[in-house]
Amino acid sequence: MSIFFDSIQHQTSVNVSQLCIGLDTDPNKIPQILKNDPDPIFSFNREIIDATHDLVCCYKPQIAYYAAVGAEKSLEMTMQYIRDKGIPILLDSKRGDIGSTAEMYVEEAFERYGADAVTINPYMGMDSMEPFLARKDKGIFILCRTSNPGGTDLQNLTLGSGLRVYEHVAKLAVEDWNTNRNVGLVVGATRPDEISDIRKITGDMPFLMPGVGAQGADVQALMEHGQGGPMIINSSRAVLYASNGSDFSVKAREVANATRIEVNSHKIEQL
Amino acid sequence: MSIFFDSIQHQTSVNVSQLCIGLDTDPNKIPQILKNDPDPIFSFNREIIDATHDLVCCYKPQIAYYAAVGAEKSLEMTMQYIRDKGIPILLDSKRGDIGSTAEMYVEEAFERYGADAVTINPYMGMDSMEPFLARKDKGIFILCRTSNPGGTDLQNLTLGSGLRVYEHVAKLAVEDWNTNRNVGLVVGATRPDEISDIRKITGDMPFLMPGVGAQGADVQALMEHGQGGPMIINSSRAVLYASNGSDFSVKAREVANATRIEVNSHKIEQL
Repeated sequence: MSIFFDSIQHQTSVNVSQLCIGLDTDPNKIPQILKNDPDPIFSFNREIIDATHDLVCCYKPQIAYYAAVGAEKSLEMTMQYIRDKGIPILLDSKRGDIGSTAEMYVEEAFERYGADAVTINPYMGMDSMEPFLARKDKGIFILCRTSNPGGTDLQNLTLGSGLRVYEHVAKLAVEDWNTNRNVGLVVGATRPDEISDIRKITGDMPFLMPGVGAQGADVQALMEHGQGGPMIINSSRAVLYASNGSDFSVKAREVANATRIEVNSHKIEQL
Repeated sequence: MSIFFDSIQHQTSVNVSQLCIGLDTDPNKIPQILKNDPDPIFSFNREIIDATHDLVCCYKPQIAYYAAVGAEKSLEMTMQYIRDKGIPILLDSKRGDIGSTAEMYVEEAFERYGADAVTINPYMGMDSMEPFLARKDKGIFILCRTSNPGGTDLQNLTLGSGLRVYEHVAKLAVEDWNTNRNVGLVVGATRPDEISDIRKITGDMPFLMPGVGAQGADVQALMEHGQGGPMIINSSRAVLYASNGSDFSVKAREVANATRIEVNSHKIEQL
């Protein structure tokens, strides 16, 4: 396993938590109390991190929210703040491009922002992923079956082989892409039966599972169907925007802890 | 057709050109003569644009190159500089994420950077593309069959229906995704037979065709096989790095013009 997966395992055991909090920090949803802050985005993240860092196995900033408003500096500061707490960071960027461009995205994720892991998109195939996969020290989560409604449009098409596209992606991940033992899969937590399908193909490959909270996934079902390997359970909006009052960080902690405890109550397999 | 496709058609006819120059500006490849410039990236782009803006139908900055080194400001200035010349801008960012995140990427492309068109990745399906597709004024180029070696890994899988994945994407683009007449497809210029397959499915849908120049596509073959609808032919590295001496912009112009003329010599269908 890569250094990232080791550090996730360590953090999971220290905090007794498989919870990842997604830092999808929407400037329009930042509580009024921070609106006059010189850097509302970083201040919001800092308060969320202060309130939850003993409850998580990692954080997952979603880069789109920062890019939309030119808040790269706030993201850099957030990454540094998380790093100073000793918590692993998964940068959710879902990049995918030809090899020479992919190298630039590798630099963005790992050199510029210092991420420990990333999400990537497999549509452009092996050479678009290879610069990421070459990073033995990092965690590389490849989109397999995503939690959104449109996830079925291409991912659930049935191939001539009888496999669905997402099953074929899982198969390639195991057979061809994981030579450095640094690959995980993004497996949407909203379709329990499909989680089982993917687990059967991938053995103990780590899953990043978005869909809990605002997207409404059933925690018990996903914990049962995903068993057999490490699972990182992500919640973003339900934690971040638990309250828009001055108690936002207290409420975020409550929701995060409730999710952590719910996950643990169904836990069969440890990270 | 969207405002973008109208403006591409206009620019194609003004400059008698289907050539798009990709601004994949690699800081490591900027000529020595600009190395001590306060903003080598913007200065390089400005000189390339000054030398070629009468030879192109649009420019296509590749966002990864700017993101890798924190050069968002240089990209913003480049976008403004191109806009001031009246040339359409296609931002190559290949984003794809769940709806709420996709809205942030829409803001990045169109509000922050003021792009006229973008590239997007279809792997996450309709709701991940919908915020882009809703922009009737813009051009939305969806990855269909990409020019890189790994393009075959998923895109060329055969479905139970007998179609390959890229053909299915082309079909969905025509039947489901193009209600605002603002959709184009990214069709790699390196596989002429597949260009024909896609053209048959899509009628006169515009194609963005990377692969000419450094990636070695055969211009005659792609012009013949792609006929039947507008084609934007992209070259990036072969133009930008035609010389690394003080004559770089002169040499870039020579290569750009030679490519433009070669494309025109095989032209059967006008934009």
